[in-house]
Amino acid sequence: MRAVKIVAAKKLLKANDQLAEENRAKLDASGVFGVNVVGSPGCGKTTLLEALFAALRGRLRGAVIEGDIAGSIDAERIEAIGIPVVQINTDGACHLDAAMIAAATQGLDYQGLDLLVVENVGNLVCTAGFDLGEHLRVAILSVTEGDDKVVKYPAIFQGSDALIVTKMDLVAMTNFKVDRVVADMQRLAPEAAIFQVSALHGDGIPALAEWLVGRRKMTNVESQITKE
Amino acid sequence: MRAVKIVAAKKLLKANDQLAEENRAKLDASGVFGVNVVGSPGCGKTTLLEALFAALRGRLRGAVIEGDIAGSIDAERIEAIGIPVVQINTDGACHLDAAMIAAATQGLDYQGLDLLVVENVGNLVCTAGFDLGEHLRVAILSVTEGDDKVVKYPAIFQGSDALIVTKMDLVAMTNFKVDRVVADMQRLAPEAAIFQVSALHGDGIPALAEWLVGRRKMTNVESQITKE
Repeated sequence: MRAVKIVAAKKLLKANDQLAEENRAKLDASGVFGVNVVGSPGCGKTTLLEALFAALRGRLRGAVIEGDIAGSIDAERIEAIGIPVVQINTDGACHLDAAMIAAATQGLDYQGLDLLVVENVGNLVCTAGFDLGEHLRVAILSVTEGDDKVVKYPAIFQGSDALIVTKMDLVAMTNFKVDRVVADMQRLAPEAAIFQVSALHGDGIPALAEWLVGRRKMTNVESQITKE
Repeated sequence: MRAVKIVAAKKLLKANDQLAEENRAKLDASGVFGVNVVGSPGCGKTTLLEALFAALRGRLRGAVIEGDIAGSIDAERIEAIGIPVVQINTDGACHLDAAMIAAATQGLDYQGLDLLVVENVGNLVCTAGFDLGEHLRVAILSVTEGDDKVVKYPAIFQGSDALIVTKMDLVAMTNFKVDRVVADMQRLAPEAAIFQVSALHGDGIPALAEWLVGRRKMTNVESQITKE
């Protein structure tokens, strides 16, 4: 009985990885750069996307896939700023997986698109285990969540290509020590870029937008080299 | 193949419910009131417990079970205020279950104890599905997470006996509308008590402590009636 269960779980994860590779290949073929945004509920993912798309206007043409347990609150916010958006309702499931992304992208036209951002379900744990087929995973941590989160939820931060510390406008009202979080992240993920932003006020958003444009360029060059 | 998987999942949930009933019976037999505290990472669960235990001093003798993916940061904070504490490391798992609580309580002496608080893993999704054997489930939402969370993560709020809105000292710095959250919660869980607190400054903590003392008294009376 136990053996059957383990085999099933392995099959499920393997299926996800295969689907993720297919999603990535589809993005590569169209020159679309995929970013998976993860973080706690309420860490400011949607507000960050609103600010980021404003900064990227005229440089990258983006679309968004919104992952939520229920409702379409975030998708409506993204639609309101004129960005194409597809809502996934997981109906209780605690993370997105590659199959959900494959289904959602059928509703998206990759032609004329440079950037696809997936806003994952708010969850600092379960989102860590599922490759969606993105090129980059970006972890968000707001200063109001406290500076112990990188140590307490290591898996999500360890596997991310960047850490974006959000709500920096509130840092003086909290006991959050940015230096501690930077040190913890550098220990867990030495290659990751680290940004400090206030999405509401725009601080740090231009640097983040610049980095994203640069990373997209690098990845496209790399995939062209691989193809030769 | 599919049928086997579904049966396994059902068995797992059923086993959890049975263990939860055993945990609850063990608490009842010793007159210990069990509270399961759930909320996002960084919503302020541990800071709330620090304030609450200070307010309960001389009234209820408490102990804590800390649930974390990794480390013992929260347990050390609870130990520092003189409260007996057991740390559960879930080693990656996204929620506590009744079996973990059964194991953890073997390290706790229920004699001379009135209150057992379980601080669950920071997760607004997966913790909703697992009865630990508690008498009350209390959901925490901090104002910095935004006022759309009750609608976006309904399961966790719907099954809770109270909503505690934390970090009220920061509310003026945010666009969080308390009225909206109260209305959403009253629609989802009409019986739930709602509190607004600032654990750092102590605002609202005495009322919360009073409510907890009252609910413990009610439950003990009820279980005595049931036994007759």
